[in-house]
Amino acid sequence: MSLIQALNWRYAVKRMNGEKVPQEKVNAILEATRLSASSMGLQPYTVLVIEDEELRREIQKVAFNQPQIVEASHLLIFAAWDNITEEQVTEYINQMATERGVAPETLNDFKSSLVGIVTRNTPEQNFQWAARQAYIAFGTAIAAAATEQVDATPMEGFNATALDELLNLKEKGLRSVTLLPLGYRDEANDWLANQKKVRREKEKLFLQVA
Amino acid sequence: MSLIQALNWRYAVKRMNGEKVPQEKVNAILEATRLSASSMGLQPYTVLVIEDEELRREIQKVAFNQPQIVEASHLLIFAAWDNITEEQVTEYINQMATERGVAPETLNDFKSSLVGIVTRNTPEQNFQWAARQAYIAFGTAIAAAATEQVDATPMEGFNATALDELLNLKEKGLRSVTLLPLGYRDEANDWLANQKKVRREKEKLFLQVA
Repeated sequence: MSLIQALNWRYAVKRMNGEKVPQEKVNAILEATRLSASSMGLQPYTVLVIEDEELRREIQKVAFNQPQIVEASHLLIFAAWDNITEEQVTEYINQMATERGVAPETLNDFKSSLVGIVTRNTPEQNFQWAARQAYIAFGTAIAAAATEQVDATPMEGFNATALDELLNLKEKGLRSVTLLPLGYRDEANDWLANQKKVRREKEKLFLQVA
Repeated sequence: MSLIQALNWRYAVKRMNGEKVPQEKVNAILEATRLSASSMGLQPYTVLVIEDEELRREIQKVAFNQPQIVEASHLLIFAAWDNITEEQVTEYINQMATERGVAPETLNDFKSSLVGIVTRNTPEQNFQWAARQAYIAFGTAIAAAATEQVDATPMEGFNATALDELLNLKEKGLRSVTLLPLGYRDEANDWLANQKKVRREKEKLFLQVA
């Protein structure tokens, strides 16, 4: 199935059937997410992977009781770093040096420009930037789930403050930005299952400038 | 080529060779972009598609002279709506009603909740939300280019105010948020071409909560 076929197949499933997604499919979705593009390669976010049903019931309460959170097999929570620090940049640069087999000092120019950006920004600006990076990974995860024929429901509708408290994200230096339950559509009970997908016409979405 | 193979193949190309990307591949990348997930399905952004080399030379000047902008075949500019208005929501609802063959009034609840959100938000909040939606499409476009074996360089490094002025985006109700040149890598001249891809280890990027 091509990516376009997969994207036509997917939709924001409103009811799931509780069936478990095989671990190798979850792993493939996570690996695609891990390989996502990220500005400077920094990947300033963490993706929480939650299978436990009791915990998902607790999360559902701060997410407008949306049934997919419990009816899903796994719940992914994309959480952006609440700030980006020089220490985090240094850890990244050291990893890059190790993996590329070069001395960390050879990456000093790159490190300085990255440190310059994140120390010039306010923590809130860094968080907003990190959140956008998380959205690139989110977009990749949605596409990857579709190519694996796993349903996924992108969800922004939840109380982020309450969720961060429930999962102690603040003390982990994280703020939740978006949710992605993974599972399988319950066609019989999902009113959206057979509705035509509506997307902006290409003549409107795209502007051919020259 | 699987999505994971494609994502391993791609990298943020620093030099491109000027070769043209066939129109059918450009179309496939745009169609995947068009099919991207979007909160409420609204797709509050426009993607500018620029082939003209002279215009790309002008754009390069406000993008730190990055060579890929000119060496690419096509340049995509993801521009978010600078606000989201009731009129735009109404247009979307009417399109949905037409395509699904229902009376617009049957969508009144959905419309009210969407209008409620965008009128409660400030224009800046709506823009930031629209920008995140554009990033989902951006992530999808990057993945789609890779599956088409077309190189793409995600770029946040440009002067958005100057670019918006150059392309009169403000009067179109748009603000540029990110760039994506499409083309082909120039391996001989790209220092990054043969560097190992560095990504956060899965044990760090993912947090298995339960």
